[in-house]
Amino acid sequence: MRAAEPALVSPERLAEFFAPRSIAVVGASDASGWARFVLAAAAATGFTGPLIPVHPAHRTVFGRTVVRSLRALAEPVDLAFIMAPAQAVGEVLDDAAAAGVRGAIVLASGYRETGGGGLAEEEALAARAAGHGITLLGPNCLGFINAHARAGPFALTVPLPVLAGPVGVALASGALASAVLAFARARAIGISTLTTLGNEAMITATDVIEYLIADDRTRVICLFLEQITDPARFACAAERAGQAGKPIVVLKAGSSPAGSRAALAHTGSVAGDDAVVAAALRQLNVIRAASVEELLCTGGLLGYGRAPRGRRMGVVTTSGGACDLIADGAAREGIEIPEFAPQTEAAIAARLPPFAQARNPLDATGYFLANRRTSALTAADHALDAAVADPGLDFVLCSSLVLPDARPADEHAAAVLEERAAWLGRRIESSPIPVVMASTTCVDVTEYGRAVLAGHGIHQLGGIDLAVRAIGNAIGWAERAGQDPRSARRAAAAPAAPARAATVARRCGDGDSDEPSLRAESAGTCAWREDDARRLLAAHGVPVVPGELASSADGATAAAIRIGYPVALRVASAAIPHRSDVGGVALGLRTAAQVRVAYRRVRAAGAAALADRDGAGGPGDRAGQNGQGDRNGQGDRNGRNDRNGRGDRGRRADGIDGVMVTKMRSGGIELLAGVTVDPAFGPVLAVGLGGIWVEVLADVSLRILPVGPPEIREMLGELRGAPLLRGARGARPADLDALADVIARIGVAAASLGGTLRTLEINPLWVDGDQIEALDVLAVTTAAQTANPDLSGAAALAQNGDKQ
Amino acid sequence: MRAAEPALVSPERLAEFFAPRSIAVVGASDASGWARFVLAAAAATGFTGPLIPVHPAHRTVFGRTVVRSLRALAEPVDLAFIMAPAQAVGEVLDDAAAAGVRGAIVLASGYRETGGGGLAEEEALAARAAGHGITLLGPNCLGFINAHARAGPFALTVPLPVLAGPVGVALASGALASAVLAFARARAIGISTLTTLGNEAMITATDVIEYLIADDRTRVICLFLEQITDPARFACAAERAGQAGKPIVVLKAGSSPAGSRAALAHTGSVAGDDAVVAAALRQLNVIRAASVEELLCTGGLLGYGRAPRGRRMGVVTTSGGACDLIADGAAREGIEIPEFAPQTEAAIAARLPPFAQARNPLDATGYFLANRRTSALTAADHALDAAVADPGLDFVLCSSLVLPDARPADEHAAAVLEERAAWLGRRIESSPIPVVMASTTCVDVTEYGRAVLAGHGIHQLGGIDLAVRAIGNAIGWAERAGQDPRSARRAAAAPAAPARAATVARRCGDGDSDEPSLRAESAGTCAWREDDARRLLAAHGVPVVPGELASSADGATAAAIRIGYPVALRVASAAIPHRSDVGGVALGLRTAAQVRVAYRRVRAAGAAALADRDGAGGPGDRAGQNGQGDRNGQGDRNGRNDRNGRGDRGRRADGIDGVMVTKMRSGGIELLAGVTVDPAFGPVLAVGLGGIWVEVLADVSLRILPVGPPEIREMLGELRGAPLLRGARGARPADLDALADVIARIGVAAASLGGTLRTLEINPLWVDGDQIEALDVLAVTTAAQTANPDLSGAAALAQNGDKQ
Repeated sequence: MRAAEPALVSPERLAEFFAPRSIAVVGASDASGWARFVLAAAAATGFTGPLIPVHPAHRTVFGRTVVRSLRALAEPVDLAFIMAPAQAVGEVLDDAAAAGVRGAIVLASGYRETGGGGLAEEEALAARAAGHGITLLGPNCLGFINAHARAGPFALTVPLPVLAGPVGVALASGALASAVLAFARARAIGISTLTTLGNEAMITATDVIEYLIADDRTRVICLFLEQITDPARFACAAERAGQAGKPIVVLKAGSSPAGSRAALAHTGSVAGDDAVVAAALRQLNVIRAASVEELLCTGGLLGYGRAPRGRRMGVVTTSGGACDLIADGAAREGIEIPEFAPQTEAAIAARLPPFAQARNPLDATGYFLANRRTSALTAADHALDAAVADPGLDFVLCSSLVLPDARPADEHAAAVLEERAAWLGRRIESSPIPVVMASTTCVDVTEYGRAVLAGHGIHQLGGIDLAVRAIGNAIGWAERAGQDPRSARRAAAAPAAPARAATVARRCGDGDSDEPSLRAESAGTCAWREDDARRLLAAHGVPVVPGELASSADGATAAAIRIGYPVALRVASAAIPHRSDVGGVALGLRTAAQVRVAYRRVRAAGAAALADRDGAGGPGDRAGQNGQGDRNGQGDRNGRNDRNGRGDRGRRADGIDGVMVTKMRSGGIELLAGVTVDPAFGPVLAVGLGGIWVEVLADVSLRILPVGPPEIREMLGELRGAPLLRGARGARPADLDALADVIARIGVAAASLGGTLRTLEINPLWVDGDQIEALDVLAVTTAAQTANPDLSGAAALAQNGDKQ
Repeated sequence: MRAAEPALVSPERLAEFFAPRSIAVVGASDASGWARFVLAAAAATGFTGPLIPVHPAHRTVFGRTVVRSLRALAEPVDLAFIMAPAQAVGEVLDDAAAAGVRGAIVLASGYRETGGGGLAEEEALAARAAGHGITLLGPNCLGFINAHARAGPFALTVPLPVLAGPVGVALASGALASAVLAFARARAIGISTLTTLGNEAMITATDVIEYLIADDRTRVICLFLEQITDPARFACAAERAGQAGKPIVVLKAGSSPAGSRAALAHTGSVAGDDAVVAAALRQLNVIRAASVEELLCTGGLLGYGRAPRGRRMGVVTTSGGACDLIADGAAREGIEIPEFAPQTEAAIAARLPPFAQARNPLDATGYFLANRRTSALTAADHALDAAVADPGLDFVLCSSLVLPDARPADEHAAAVLEERAAWLGRRIESSPIPVVMASTTCVDVTEYGRAVLAGHGIHQLGGIDLAVRAIGNAIGWAERAGQDPRSARRAAAAPAAPARAATVARRCGDGDSDEPSLRAESAGTCAWREDDARRLLAAHGVPVVPGELASSADGATAAAIRIGYPVALRVASAAIPHRSDVGGVALGLRTAAQVRVAYRRVRAAGAAALADRDGAGGPGDRAGQNGQGDRNGQGDRNGRNDRNGRGDRGRRADGIDGVMVTKMRSGGIELLAGVTVDPAFGPVLAVGLGGIWVEVLADVSLRILPVGPPEIREMLGELRGAPLLRGARGARPADLDALADVIARIGVAAASLGGTLRTLEINPLWVDGDQIEALDVLAVTTAAQTANPDLSGAAALAQNGDKQ
């Protein structure tokens, strides 16, 4: 995607790009609504530099003298806003280059978002700009507004006034920008730079993040994204944002399959699996908002004043109903409302009417309305004064300041209000803990309200519902920022560990090559033989249930004696990943006779399953044609050789490697721990309890690899089935530290496969107190290209075993 | 609670009460903020009648001549707004009565909400008003606003202007009223009557609902409630609202434990268990909102125009981002966004720019801005025109109309906008399916916006997030309203069925009385003997697993032979409801020898459990003192007598009734079906899968009884574990119709116990395809008062067995 040299989109270059002192509007005409908006936006932002219409045919546009071409400019402008049709844009870029213009916005649609040839055209466009040394925003975008630099090359309505402030914004959907600006103004949330991103042909969302991190005016970064195009760079930027103390808040579209479709239709890019995106954002400590309103209110809270960092909330209101709603919201967000300390309670009670209770959450009541006010301050204000000194609180949410639409005509009332606001501003400033102000419902802050709030340094969140969500977001961010931030944030940024699988002998689907085949370029995938996969785990310190691969009933009984009864038998075939589904598993075998019977049964079941597949004409068409079934009896007595990965050549022409004999485990809890590869984010670790927990409840926690044991303990804690691990229903509590360590090792084992990894799944991972063992393992990697054409059928079968 | 005759709060009387033509403000003074607000609210609502300050000491108040007492009024006013302190209110009521005043609002706090003596004072207040024939709102309230009647005796800020409209509002928290009015104005949502409820000493929320149902100006009823004080009356009102086609939307505080505390502090009433409230509201087809904003937006959607009634949504926007957000929200709400029909797609495509796609959800793009507009209508408008005719859609959500803050100075632009709005209004009116208009974010509708929208009959929801929630609420309401509404709505209204348990012989904890004891007044509760509980179920047609109560090892083996092996044994004791926890259960017994061993083991385990309890000094202190343990061997051979409830006298001095021998069931799925009694809503049916589903996942569906099989099928479908019933993980799919029928019978069996019911729990209720059986049952009723003091220990133990 990146067609430009990094220098063209570096924070330094973008700082110039986003602060142009002169702008040409190419393709401007009196008929163009876009041109009209660009002129209006320039006025709205207080742009004072030259704003020059460029058009080959017109003489004046909106009363301004037109230049026929960029080449005709007396001196180069900083930025060309190109609203010419797509087919003319390339030529305009040439003109811009000739005129010494270094920045361009391309409005035209019809590129990547249309699919097909549009992508090539877009790449050509970006390459052309890069060739000219031009930094390009778009195409298919509407420009930007830099409120502090008073520059607004922006082709959509700008609600007035434009408020400058600490919130940087980047939007994948340009048409949302007006609505975002309208809501920001309604909530008195000032922006630093707001940019639409368009198709990100050159300047990407990540570039803008890097620019906003470097931008002194920006304290928080709010994004609307339809995809995360380059997760590794995004992760690096997120880490830097964290280091800079600038939270990132993302409204990520496509949280639903339908949403993904809409995102696809709009931008032509496939949104990643949302659960993976959610896990990645969480690991990167990127806040995820669920609406534009939540996005901006969270940005406002984090951008202005001090955001809460702990969960103990004091609440000061003048309404019992507000207390109720705040308490309900707090419970949803996991925010506590502890009792006030006795001295706080006493101080508050002294100012309350006798029928009111000095409890947290506090309803100070409207009793101050009963008598003439002798002070600007109300009982709620005195309560706030006391609450901020309470040693048991991390912050106070205060919903007591109601602003009239306009300055009261009654001068005394106005003076009282403004004196009170001034006191509040000072008390919030001097408070030892953060004070979050919120209105009761989400209504606009009027011009007068903005003046009063801004005049006293107060930011007021828009309604209890959004306020409590924003607070929950802010606290979560602070908590994760307080954790070992580097390791957490680096997670998605880190490449998969270099391939270490070469140290583990492994055969891929066929028995003819003991050499590891890690050719990532291979088109197909293949499932490993289980004994190979077991050795991979063991090599990384993952405890594996004692077991041996047997090739005959005698071999199985001999293995069982070495392992110790009871044992379990499973047909071993790379082509049958789900053995229990086909009757290929026998459990709880206690005698040699039982093992013999079971051996024949599971092997026959496996053969039948493969034969069924052949009959069905599936991808394993050619497997099992040899029809040798159980008759491949050689090598019966060299189970040890099996474990060393030798002595099995030529035995699996029916697609069955043999039968895995393992120690039988019962009781305890069965987990699933698996690594798959997300097309965008790379290896993803999934941890869950087995059985219904995965199949019916989809109760799985995800993380982008690598993750360490502390994060894995957190994953285990997120599971709905977590109480079972802690000993619910009479189970032995699992040794969670040991379990997290084992799962971390599974992650490392997966990473050792490098780019060939497709799936490494342990299911079940058995836990009984501090006993932890992988009972069954499935490894799938990109298929080895072999020289033996006869094995292509097995390779196809193996591909079928890919669980992704 | 109801101190008044119904006539004082009838809809007819309240129609007068809420439309006063003359108002006295008692206790008004220049110093009173409340009085100032009442005067301002009168002006705001356009009140033209007499508004007379009444005060014993002042001569004028805010320039108006003061009357010294209500008795001094020349003629009676319709309403007295009493803002005198609590201790003076009673006398003012006497004055009011003497003056012929029939309505009063009491503002004073210090009644029920303070606990203690406040409740008695409040009851005395209500009784005094009732004695005078005065209808009373409050105390601890702030009055009301009737926008259509232009009356606003309301003691808090009124954001101007007051908009008259179809939304009736009642608020348990008076101080929320200003915020509610502010948000309603911001969203251009007009109200009919908005009233604060205060402590509901006489006029209750339900009375207001009945009034609003009868009020022609009201189309939808929005409530903020901290409790549902009289569920039966509330249910009747909800049913009537449904019949009248007026949806009720409730914001119910106390959805969290912390919220319950806040509600308690505020109103002095205990909120019911929220899950039960949620179930009841659902059954009554009352919409539940999660915020004030959602409450009012849902009210606005249902109050204005036509609300969606089906789930197939067409989407017309001018922004891909809006499409994404709508799609994500729709997925959350279970709303579908199907493909457009081919003819719709063709009609839309004809008006779109070439790079845009005519797909649902539609981004019509801002391309119309490229050229001079030749028509007021945009591509989005033409798309709407086509979409409303699509046969595959139930409604269209349209987010394409952006209103400027004020009328554009450019007359042409203003004319184009207004022509477009007029067309939209007409097209929405003529559309065969509902069209829901929404802004992109939740910002205020300005005065100009209100004029444009109201002028063309358009209601616009506030932002995509709230709009989609409101639509989801409306569709859910319509769907439930379309179901057999009477049975559903009557559910919570219906009293428990009359006690029919008298037809089933039953003994309560002791063996000395075969007479049913249904004295509901009894303080304690007692758990039934299992064989009694089994007979109760059988009498109501609930299939019960074959079983017999045995009193000796011989008796158990004899029973096992009659029942057929394999069998299960469970120690039978009303004092041990959780038998498996104490080792009192033996499963899968296949021989007489196994039964004998198991009999002794489970009986000993039961005895040990009871002894442990004694040792622990629990409520069963005196039980088991006889220490007879297993030695009570008489009656061994009359298992049949056991089943008939005789022949067991004197055998259970150790607290153990014997050992229940039942047919062993395995495979299948184990459910829990139980009835408990909610203090507010009465008998509540809980249905869930057994084991982890209840214990770890709390995966239970609730309904207030009675419910019929169709509703129970819905309950089963709501369970997270529902896929197991449908055959996931290889289980036989359950016969859901048969299962629902059995569970309905369990509900009837519970109802048959009338007021004595405390718990009737079948756990497990075993299901294997169409085989359904109660394997174990626990019945707890209010304890019988017996004349035998020696049994009090057993009664206490039985009380301990109460699972509630």
